[in-house]
Amino acid sequence: MDHKEIIKALEWRYATKIFDPAKKVSDEDMHTILESARLAPSSVGIEPWKFLVVANPEVRTKLRAAGYDQPKITDASHLVVIARRTDAEALPGELIARAAKIEGKAPEELAGLRQMAEGTIGARTDAALRGEYLARQTYIPLGIMVETASLLGVDNCPMEGFDPDQVAAILGLAAKNLYPVAMIAFGYRGDDAFAKIPKVRRSFEEAVEFIA
Amino acid sequence: MDHKEIIKALEWRYATKIFDPAKKVSDEDMHTILESARLAPSSVGIEPWKFLVVANPEVRTKLRAAGYDQPKITDASHLVVIARRTDAEALPGELIARAAKIEGKAPEELAGLRQMAEGTIGARTDAALRGEYLARQTYIPLGIMVETASLLGVDNCPMEGFDPDQVAAILGLAAKNLYPVAMIAFGYRGDDAFAKIPKVRRSFEEAVEFIA
Repeated sequence: MDHKEIIKALEWRYATKIFDPAKKVSDEDMHTILESARLAPSSVGIEPWKFLVVANPEVRTKLRAAGYDQPKITDASHLVVIARRTDAEALPGELIARAAKIEGKAPEELAGLRQMAEGTIGARTDAALRGEYLARQTYIPLGIMVETASLLGVDNCPMEGFDPDQVAAILGLAAKNLYPVAMIAFGYRGDDAFAKIPKVRRSFEEAVEFIA
Repeated sequence: MDHKEIIKALEWRYATKIFDPAKKVSDEDMHTILESARLAPSSVGIEPWKFLVVANPEVRTKLRAAGYDQPKITDASHLVVIARRTDAEALPGELIARAAKIEGKAPEELAGLRQMAEGTIGARTDAALRGEYLARQTYIPLGIMVETASLLGVDNCPMEGFDPDQVAAILGLAAKNLYPVAMIAFGYRGDDAFAKIPKVRRSFEEAVEFIA
C-alpha cells in the first residue's frame, strides 16, 4: 500500500453537502465499505452496533425530516444509520457464543473473556454513561467507513445532526434493542460549493505531540 | 485502490497482545498513521483531540503501571495516547481562527459556522455528557489509525484499559486541557498465541441490515 495514496484519499474527501442523486455507488464498493465496518475492533470485542442501510425513498424522506432537512439524507446514493445496542447486558453472552463457535471451543473455556466483558460493562453503573460507552465504540467503524470509502473514491459525510428519538421511531429500532448514534451518506459530489473550500485542519504540530 | 487489499488488511489485523520489542515502525509509516488521524473528520470540525506519541522508556514504564501492566505499553514500537480536550468552550473560537486563516476569510464571515459549533457544544449542558461528546469524536481517528496501520502492515492494538486519571497525571495533561481517552500500540507482532486465533466477528448478516 502506497503511503501517498492513503493521504491523498483523506485529503480528497470532505464533508459532502450536495450529492449527485443520479450517481450510484456500486454494490462492490458498498460491500467493501460495510465489510470494513464489520471488521472494526471494539471494546473487549463486544461489537455493540448495527449498520442499517436505508434504500427505501419514503423512509429516507422521513429521515430527512428528522435530520434538519439535510438534502444529503435523501440525495446521497446510500445512507447508513449506525446504531448502538441498548441492551448492554446481552453483549457478553453473545460475544462468548460467537467466540466459542468461531474458535471451536466450549463456552466454559472462555470464562476469562466473559469475566472481562461483564466486568467492563458492569463497571459502568450510570445508565447514560453506559450508553455513551457503547456509543463511543460505534465511532470506530464510522472512521473506518470514512477511510474505506475515501480510498475507493466514494464521497461520504458522517452526520450527528438529527433527532435520535425520531430516527429510532421511523426505523423501529426500540424493538431491535438499538438506538441511532450517527449516519453516513455515501455517493458522489454534485455541484457543491463546499468541495472547493480548502480543507481546514489543525497543523501536524498542533495535532501531534512527541514525548521523547 | 483494490477492494480485496483493504479487506485483507483488516482481516490480517488483530488486537496484538505481544509485540516484538526489537522491531521498530519506520518514521514514514508512523507519519502516515498520524497524518491520517489528523485528517479525520469531527463534529462541526472542532477536532477536540491531541495525539501524544510517547517514546520515552521511563514514561512508558509508568504508563504500563497505570495500564494493568499490559506488556504492549512498553514493548510496542510506538505508543500513541489519544486525548480529548477538556475546555470545550475554547473549541469554536479555535475552529473559526483556523478556518479564517486557511480559507482566507475574515472571522466575521464565518458567523454561521461559529453559531453551529457554539450551539452544538452549548446544547450539552451536562458536564459528563459534554465530555463524552468530545470523547466520542476521538474514536474516529482511532478507527482511521487502525485502518491506516493495517494497510501498511503495521500491527496495532487500541486500548481503553488504563486508569485515565493516572495517565493524565503521568503525562501532565491537565495543564494542557487534555484528558486521555484511549491508547494505541503500534509495532510488529512477536510470539503471540493470539495471532493464531481465528478472527471473531458478527456475520455480515448480523452486523448489517438492508431496509429496502
